[in-house]
Amino acid sequence: MSSSSGPDRAARLSVLQSTLIGPHLDALVISSLDNIRYLTGFGGSSGLLLITRRACTLITDGRYELAVRAAISDGTIAPVGVARVAIRYDLTLAECLSLLGGRKVGFEAAHVTVATLQAWQKVLPDVIWSDTHGLVERQRLIKDPWEQEVFRRAGKALAGVALRLREWVRAGESERDVAAAIEHGLMEAGFAKPAFPTIVASGPNSAHPHARPTARPLASGDLVVLDFGGELDGYCVDLTRMAVVGPASAEAEALYASVRVAHQAALDAVRPGIETSAIDAAARGVLESRGLGEAFLHGTGHGLGLEVHEAPRIARSGPEAPELVEVGMVFTIEPGAYLPELGGVRLEDDVLVTAMGCEVLTEAPRDLLVV
Amino acid sequence: MSSSSGPDRAARLSVLQSTLIGPHLDALVISSLDNIRYLTGFGGSSGLLLITRRACTLITDGRYELAVRAAISDGTIAPVGVARVAIRYDLTLAECLSLLGGRKVGFEAAHVTVATLQAWQKVLPDVIWSDTHGLVERQRLIKDPWEQEVFRRAGKALAGVALRLREWVRAGESERDVAAAIEHGLMEAGFAKPAFPTIVASGPNSAHPHARPTARPLASGDLVVLDFGGELDGYCVDLTRMAVVGPASAEAEALYASVRVAHQAALDAVRPGIETSAIDAAARGVLESRGLGEAFLHGTGHGLGLEVHEAPRIARSGPEAPELVEVGMVFTIEPGAYLPELGGVRLEDDVLVTAMGCEVLTEAPRDLLVV
Repeated sequence: MSSSSGPDRAARLSVLQSTLIGPHLDALVISSLDNIRYLTGFGGSSGLLLITRRACTLITDGRYELAVRAAISDGTIAPVGVARVAIRYDLTLAECLSLLGGRKVGFEAAHVTVATLQAWQKVLPDVIWSDTHGLVERQRLIKDPWEQEVFRRAGKALAGVALRLREWVRAGESERDVAAAIEHGLMEAGFAKPAFPTIVASGPNSAHPHARPTARPLASGDLVVLDFGGELDGYCVDLTRMAVVGPASAEAEALYASVRVAHQAALDAVRPGIETSAIDAAARGVLESRGLGEAFLHGTGHGLGLEVHEAPRIARSGPEAPELVEVGMVFTIEPGAYLPELGGVRLEDDVLVTAMGCEVLTEAPRDLLVV
Repeated sequence: MSSSSGPDRAARLSVLQSTLIGPHLDALVISSLDNIRYLTGFGGSSGLLLITRRACTLITDGRYELAVRAAISDGTIAPVGVARVAIRYDLTLAECLSLLGGRKVGFEAAHVTVATLQAWQKVLPDVIWSDTHGLVERQRLIKDPWEQEVFRRAGKALAGVALRLREWVRAGESERDVAAAIEHGLMEAGFAKPAFPTIVASGPNSAHPHARPTARPLASGDLVVLDFGGELDGYCVDLTRMAVVGPASAEAEALYASVRVAHQAALDAVRPGIETSAIDAAARGVLESRGLGEAFLHGTGHGLGLEVHEAPRIARSGPEAPELVEVGMVFTIEPGAYLPELGGVRLEDDVLVTAMGCEVLTEAPRDLLVV
């Protein structure tokens, strides 16, 4: 991804820098590697980003030194001004902050452990550490035009993989082999890697929303949950389709039909301005009215982005402040119902919120695939 | 893994419970999923473990409810007495602690974020939260006999994969295809999954210790770093061997020879009672004496266990308290030297510390593989 065709990271950084002014922060330390990736393009497994109103310093370790210096020179890591190489992050951070004269420094409360904060307090006893909450996540919540294009490409590629499920899902194949075939299909479709370990859950295993693929061979009458996703240009998409090893029982078909209605109800509910919980309520209402409220073991969806699970949460309203749906959000719609005796059904698509409602990114047939 | 042939988790829990007595803790909350896996066998992606001197409660969410209740019944998740299902972990934790009447509660400072601790303080304003450091990690540092047997099997299986490298490393093959072949080999050898994304770094890419495989085809004269590992019965092993696409230059052979001597020096240094940094010094001394001190961009090794990087750190001594090598530790020995013009060399084996020195778990030829 060249800097010219890539996202406008300088704009992202400016927005963030402007948030330092209100709380009078001299500097902000970004610890989340996903947030660092969002702001700079650095994709290493270890680093800290130190941001002041004027500058941006990436602290990493010797493993990444050569690559980072090269990437700063050619602009693929930007708008980082300088890289610092740390043996101990706390000491290098202390050195950088001392140079800057930073006195009030923000940190990411959700990404800094108590032990790390204690270490920073020890090496920088004069700094006032100020907890910040979701500063970068709030930016990441609304996908910019460049990100929306990545999602359109990724969703289309994932729908293409879904179209091939019939090639792989067959009676007698093990869950594990089907999962391997799907993951191979993801690579062939151009994904850099699976976004998470593929779920192929058949028969009794399908009653567990998070089952891992086993050696169990698909058998007659099985419901089969096929939940997979891929990462493209750093962004994750996620899709679930259902198969049944024929002949399907009337009960299995009825369970599938209920989830499909719930899924459609949730899709129809999406529009800017409503509470995210209203989308969950749309799906949950359908399942409750059919006696399946207790069988819906999870929320209706989750945000997608650099992480496969990020904000917003599409779930029941809780004691926290309600969150409103906004144009540019991308999230999954994935109601499910799980019955220990019969098995489970889940259907999942990814949507981009538009002014009028939403655009389904993963448009592929949702019919129960009879194999 | 059945409970009868598995590790003695009740003993692990007892050791931990005994550590609560000194600091007068009424309860301890374990947040690290790896620590929860170590203590109970629960391998889900979300959970908290609440430990008192008498009991052990696993808090997880609806996705895992059925599986966890079944596993507690049949003893594969043990010695957990009861599972609690949470929609919001903080609220369920508060409820459990209120029932227990816990007033002074320990938490894992390295695994609890500042934001999570703030949430707990809010729902449990009367609890005195006491930071604990590495209570479970200290237990995990010394592998028990059951774990040592798993490591012997895993090391042998990984050495078997190393013996097959000649099948896969060929001029013209891309780094990515070689990595895929190695990962396929890991599966064939019985590993549940790669322990980390396989590194195949050729030519200029080999100068980056953490290079990701690219589409670059292996070319004449390339040094090729092959770094891969697998997870077996939950435990990670890790190995690096070197290839060169012949003919090898004299410089490449000399670089390889230096790293090999450093690697042997580190292996020879391992014995109980010395500081871990002495092992690093043994390898580093060899490379420094050959003018390669600056080219050794990382530490000599890292502990292995449920995680592919855990304690101890085999690196230069720092300001922290020195750590002593103990019988039953398992770690890597992996010195390397990286020269931007020539490329990089790394050799890596896994060792189990014994009374007399160490046992190499990954015994496979270390010669420079000329392909």
